[in-house]
Amino acid sequence: MSGFDIAELDEVIHGRLRLGVMAYLSTADVADFNELKARLHASDGNLSIHLRKLEDAGYVTIGKTFVGRKPLTRVSLTDKGRNAFLAYLDAIEKLSERG
Amino acid sequence: MSGFDIAELDEVIHGRLRLGVMAYLSTADVADFNELKARLHASDGNLSIHLRKLEDAGYVTIGKTFVGRKPLTRVSLTDKGRNAFLAYLDAIEKLSERG
Repeated sequence: MSGFDIAELDEVIHGRLRLGVMAYLSTADVADFNELKARLHASDGNLSIHLRKLEDAGYVTIGKTFVGRKPLTRVSLTDKGRNAFLAYLDAIEKLSERG
Repeated sequence: MSGFDIAELDEVIHGRLRLGVMAYLSTADVADFNELKARLHASDGNLSIHLRKLEDAGYVTIGKTFVGRKPLTRVSLTDKGRNAFLAYLDAIEKLSERG
C-alpha cells in the first residue's frame, strides 16, 4: 500500500465538475462557457464557482470578450493546469497497478 | 467529448477516503479497521462514516469479532464492490484516452 496515498490526489481536480472541466480542456485547450455548461450539464452558478476555483489554482485562465453584444467567456487550460491534470491521472493510475 | 461523462463516475467510490478504502481492499481483499485507519490517516469517526456508506452500497461487508477482549472490525470487498471499482477505473481511464 505504499503506491497509493490519497493525500497525493489533487483535490482541486478531484471534484467531479472540475474534473470534467479539466478533462474537456485537456483535449480542447480552450472552450467557451456555454460549451462547458452544455457538455457538463452544469448550471451557470455552479460552473462559475468551480471555474473560479480552477483559476485560483492557476489551472485555467478565464477571458471575457464580446461577440457583437453578446458576452463570451473563454476558458483556457494553462501549462500548470495541464501538468497538474497529468499528475492527477498518474496518481489515479497507481490505483489500478495494485491489482 | 462523447467519451467522458462525469455522471458516469460512481460518486460512492469517488469520495477521496472511500477511494482509498476501495483501492486498499482491491489488493488486500480484507483489512481490519485499524489497518485502514493507519493507512489512510483517517479518524475513527470519519472512517466509520465512509465504511458505512460503502456497506450501504453493497461494496464492502463489515464484520465484528473479538480477539480476546479486543473488538476487531474486519472489512471485506464484495464482488459487487470489486466490479464497481473496476468500472470506476475504466471511467477514469477514459480521461487520459482523450489527449
